Amino acid sequence: MLEILFLGTGASVPSRDRSTSCIAVRGGSDIILMDCGEGSQRQIMISPFSFMKIRAVLITHMHGDHVFGLPGLLQTMSLNGRKEPLTVYGPEGLRAGLDAMMSVTEGETCYDLSVVELSGGERFSVNNMTIQSYVTDHGIRSLGYVLREADYPGKLDKAKAMSLGISPGPEMARLKNGETIRGVRPEDVISPSTPGLSVSYTGDSRPCQGITEASKGVDVLIHESTFMSSESALAHDHFHSTVTQAAEAARACGVRALMLTHISNRYDDRGAVVDDARSVFAETVAVDDLQLYEVTTKTIRLVEP
Amino acid sequence: MLEILFLGTGASVPSRDRSTSCIAVRGGSDIILMDCGEGSQRQIMISPFSFMKIRAVLITHMHGDHVFGLPGLLQTMSLNGRKEPLTVYGPEGLRAGLDAMMSVTEGETCYDLSVVELSGGERFSVNNMTIQSYVTDHGIRSLGYVLREADYPGKLDKAKAMSLGISPGPEMARLKNGETIRGVRPEDVISPSTPGLSVSYTGDSRPCQGITEASKGVDVLIHESTFMSSESALAHDHFHSTVTQAAEAARACGVRALMLTHISNRYDDRGAVVDDARSVFAETVAVDDLQLYEVTTKTIRLVEP
Repeated sequence: MLEILFLGTGASVPSRDRSTSCIAVRGGSDIILMDCGEGSQRQIMISPFSFMKIRAVLITHMHGDHVFGLPGLLQTMSLNGRKEPLTVYGPEGLRAGLDAMMSVTEGETCYDLSVVELSGGERFSVNNMTIQSYVTDHGIRSLGYVLREADYPGKLDKAKAMSLGISPGPEMARLKNGETIRGVRPEDVISPSTPGLSVSYTGDSRPCQGITEASKGVDVLIHESTFMSSESALAHDHFHSTVTQAAEAARACGVRALMLTHISNRYDDRGAVVDDARSVFAETVAVDDLQLYEVTTKTIRLVEP
Repeated sequence: MLEILFLGTGASVPSRDRSTSCIAVRGGSDIILMDCGEGSQRQIMISPFSFMKIRAVLITHMHGDHVFGLPGLLQTMSLNGRKEPLTVYGPEGLRAGLDAMMSVTEGETCYDLSVVELSGGERFSVNNMTIQSYVTDHGIRSLGYVLREADYPGKLDKAKAMSLGISPGPEMARLKNGETIRGVRPEDVISPSTPGLSVSYTGDSRPCQGITEASKGVDVLIHESTFMSSESALAHDHFHSTVTQAAEAARACGVRALMLTHISNRYDDRGAVVDDARSVFAETVAVDDLQLYEVTTKTIRLVEP
């Protein structure tokens, strides 16, 4: 199961109801944070997640509404006595930007803080999660990320194995571990593994090949959609996407659900925004701050608030 | 009348209930912001004040919980089309720190942004408010500020003036403007002016002479009180004050009210904190986020929430 917690869903600036960009994805007890706009640490404190369980932070691009919460979060972790090392990933420029922000105050952390700059296309692991970065199109260096759980192992059909002469206990275990026993191959009695659940987050971007290539077949696509389709010229000029462009990406990628975030606060009527998308891709929601979605192989559902 | 709006009252880190340090003082429609911890811009948006009416920002010291909200606020003002110039005042190091934070992203503002570094003891005006900086003791360069309204002019006793032969209209106006008319001096018929209301904010500091000298006779003393009196050694070691040290300063200065902020969140029981202070200085409150106090020559009262 993957849980997706929207901590900040505002576009460019916060509002009474929305903090700036931040999304937490939890697999097991490990949390990966994507973007960290101002106010994110307090949003996590208000949420059911623990900020001390964050294992990595992924930054999509160095705009204030996506990074100004980073120094505060990192210092609060330090004041709370974090010992576990932490790595922040992001585009080129992340190291200089983070160094600048942390230098403002006595910015040492009591844990090892690493910065990894990516150019897009890298694949790496954080605990049980595989992460792939991809290049997006936001006028500055910008990345999106696909997070993928480890595959779910197939199920052993014990009755069938026994009918083929495998005895319960050590033999069964060896078969499970991939050994062929007296001609009985694991694949004869174990169903194929199921791909782990996956989520792709675009950050801010125009529609682009980077998004659609990397997000092919993911379970959930979290796509920025700053503007409605009527404002496509404005979206293009500001290196953003419209709601329908996000929906087109979701359709092209064959995802199970599209979650729209970073919607300009000029649009009061979120119902109209979602309708705009649903004409292209039905399984669309517009997300709000502190909403927690639970993603399983069977369902994708809003848990709270 | 002065209004004091507490936007962030947490110590060092935010919590579910408290944002980091930020206080807005409003005189007329002009707002002066003191400190700007992470999340301050959103707190203002939630409050009854308008962040576009901020005329100056005063920073006490360059610790993250007092400044990490600054770049976001300044950029949001820019995105909202602010035209009026803005000056940020603070201790030496402010310029480099602010430049560093603003450089992280494309940090240009569409209005003139000035930085004034102070060393303590300066006196300057922002619209109708006079501001005096003072040196505090926080282990790094740190300042407190006294904000004072212009004096309230005395009242003309019209009946008395007429009985002394002054005719209503132009003569009365000339007398009001300070002219002596046929031997009748303004002070014969106009009551003395009343000093404008004043508030002193210590920022983070050990008890020190800077605070007590500058805050003598102010109406409201906003004093940090990170620790209770039982933890005075800890307070000293971390360059902070205890609740009773704040109360002693209030008593020494003869203020009308003491407002305690920046109380460590290890103290759940704010009643006990206030009791600790009231044994020394009765007119004490511990303030919470989004509380608005109205200060007049007659009363100091909590208006909301």
